[in-house]
Amino acid sequence: MGITERIRKLRQLFKEKEIEGLLVSHPINCYYLSGFIGSAGYLLITENRLIIIVDFRYTEQAKRQSPDFELFNLVGPMEDWFSQLVGSLKIKKLGFESNNVTFILYRQLTEILQKKQLPLQLIPTDGLVESLRAVKEPAEIELINKAVEISDRAIAHVRQVIRPEMSELAVAWEIEKYMRENGSGTIPFELIVAAGPNAALPHAHPSERPIRSGEPIMIDIGARYQSYTSDLTRTICLGQPDSTFQKVYDTVLGAQLAAIAIIKENLSGEAADAIARTVIQEAGYGENFGHGLGHGIGLETHEAPRLGSRSSDKLANGMVFSIEPGIYLPGWGGIRIEDTVVLEKSKIKILSKAEKIAKS
Amino acid sequence: MGITERIRKLRQLFKEKEIEGLLVSHPINCYYLSGFIGSAGYLLITENRLIIIVDFRYTEQAKRQSPDFELFNLVGPMEDWFSQLVGSLKIKKLGFESNNVTFILYRQLTEILQKKQLPLQLIPTDGLVESLRAVKEPAEIELINKAVEISDRAIAHVRQVIRPEMSELAVAWEIEKYMRENGSGTIPFELIVAAGPNAALPHAHPSERPIRSGEPIMIDIGARYQSYTSDLTRTICLGQPDSTFQKVYDTVLGAQLAAIAIIKENLSGEAADAIARTVIQEAGYGENFGHGLGHGIGLETHEAPRLGSRSSDKLANGMVFSIEPGIYLPGWGGIRIEDTVVLEKSKIKILSKAEKIAKS
Repeated sequence: MGITERIRKLRQLFKEKEIEGLLVSHPINCYYLSGFIGSAGYLLITENRLIIIVDFRYTEQAKRQSPDFELFNLVGPMEDWFSQLVGSLKIKKLGFESNNVTFILYRQLTEILQKKQLPLQLIPTDGLVESLRAVKEPAEIELINKAVEISDRAIAHVRQVIRPEMSELAVAWEIEKYMRENGSGTIPFELIVAAGPNAALPHAHPSERPIRSGEPIMIDIGARYQSYTSDLTRTICLGQPDSTFQKVYDTVLGAQLAAIAIIKENLSGEAADAIARTVIQEAGYGENFGHGLGHGIGLETHEAPRLGSRSSDKLANGMVFSIEPGIYLPGWGGIRIEDTVVLEKSKIKILSKAEKIAKS
Repeated sequence: MGITERIRKLRQLFKEKEIEGLLVSHPINCYYLSGFIGSAGYLLITENRLIIIVDFRYTEQAKRQSPDFELFNLVGPMEDWFSQLVGSLKIKKLGFESNNVTFILYRQLTEILQKKQLPLQLIPTDGLVESLRAVKEPAEIELINKAVEISDRAIAHVRQVIRPEMSELAVAWEIEKYMRENGSGTIPFELIVAAGPNAALPHAHPSERPIRSGEPIMIDIGARYQSYTSDLTRTICLGQPDSTFQKVYDTVLGAQLAAIAIIKENLSGEAADAIARTVIQEAGYGENFGHGLGHGIGLETHEAPRLGSRSSDKLANGMVFSIEPGIYLPGWGGIRIEDTVVLEKSKIKILSKAEKIAKS
């Protein structure tokens, strides 16, 4: 991993944000910058120091995974270890991740600084590490592509085995088991298999409901390969779909293909979203596409950039994200088609290769 | 579920905390109070209103799962919907969950209130819903017990199939697959299977490392049944354990049995922890038991109460928690023994029935 380069880029942002260091608390950001995988711990990065702060449960692991970092053992009350840590730094302005640090933690840290009369100011920052993570290194794209291949194969597999009367849960487990036994780590989110009216819920949980012929079956899955994830949705139909299905399917597919053809670098997330939204609106389904067009994919399945009607994120080469328009009709069901794509040389390259045919 | 009773109890806390309502943002707390399962959304509970706030992705689901709540559709910029929502309330002091709300969200909400000159004060609260969740209803204990039974059977299963040279990952997947195919929902945490030196890491991730005869194999697993979880650790050995194994195993087991025998109601988390810690210290391993004795178990695998050296939580009848002392020796490995227990009539009742023998 390019950890040295990532730290260099992060330090460049320090000047711009007028901070002399950053307390990294988001576990995925910690992993990205240090290689440390744990549910608890912090990094403290200044111009000339790299510190990893973990408790007893993680000290051995931190030594193994983050050899370039000084290990600071988090022991005893926060008042003691935080003031000791901060006292050893020669800085006055420390950034923290305001989209991750809770109100109560912020208040505790502030109170410690006041009580101990430490001349350090806590500066809220938002999305610094996330902005680095949004643009992928070639090696990261390779890992995402491995995850994409696993989910592609899982969809091909489920098309072979899915039958009417199987429950949504049985189908979801069939897919999950296939992915786990064919190279995936723990799956990044609970898989969605939603049939008939359940498919009108964009984020349905699989249920005991049996799948029936002729209804839309929405399948939204993701795999994980060496910490990197994929995200893929196909909507299929067993037997003969009704006329609504065909019309809605073609609209969603048209919206997706339009977005894939037109999205380019420097477009805002809002402008990218508008391409697909216009297609759906003109077909009369504007009210039924209530979520954004897509989201960044990497170490998390939902990360920067966001493609949606209120997103000012600028798309850049090297970004990996989903393109996933959907139409949801309460009582009937819904259709969503989603690919994981990468922006390369100002063009969308589709990573997911799963067939986009509705009939299984 | 006793949702009506839960809301009644929550409202009783309002007076004590000098708030007229609570904005509930922690997804698990939302589920506990409303039945709504979703990754995004809020509840707003006042003396006379129950409001669920979700976006397009979850409106259908919220109607189905939370019929007693008024549905407030989160649409457009936060400035618009939050001021509209707050304007419709007749209250001046709204609590929020300070251990869940991020600094940036707190600041955004505060700025909206100022800009729109809304006479509402945001009051930080900490652990209100968590304190209700800590004491389980009989129906909740039944569900936890179902999850416990699944993890018990999985340990019995793995004792049958585990062999030297299987990788930690293969063993972990064998257990996970068994649980998922025998009644468990998605597992509550990544299972730990850590052999030899890896068992010195209390929170190890399973690796490709093959398991060998004679070394400690730490297996920490949890199942989920209708949203409720279990937590169980056994440390086993294939073949002949060394003399360290037997000594450490007996010390950990002794510490666990002492805690089980002595813990009673009104004991603090710190006092409960001290029972086991004293046994381990007197055996000369005080430095090697670096984590707390246990944690509450329910909708989350780590919730209130905490049993640890700095916990003032008071133990009460109806609380379900883990008792899990451990000794970790860098380079050699570690031993942890963990049960899910419930405090009933001031006595510990062990829910998990998995055998506590080291040899498989």
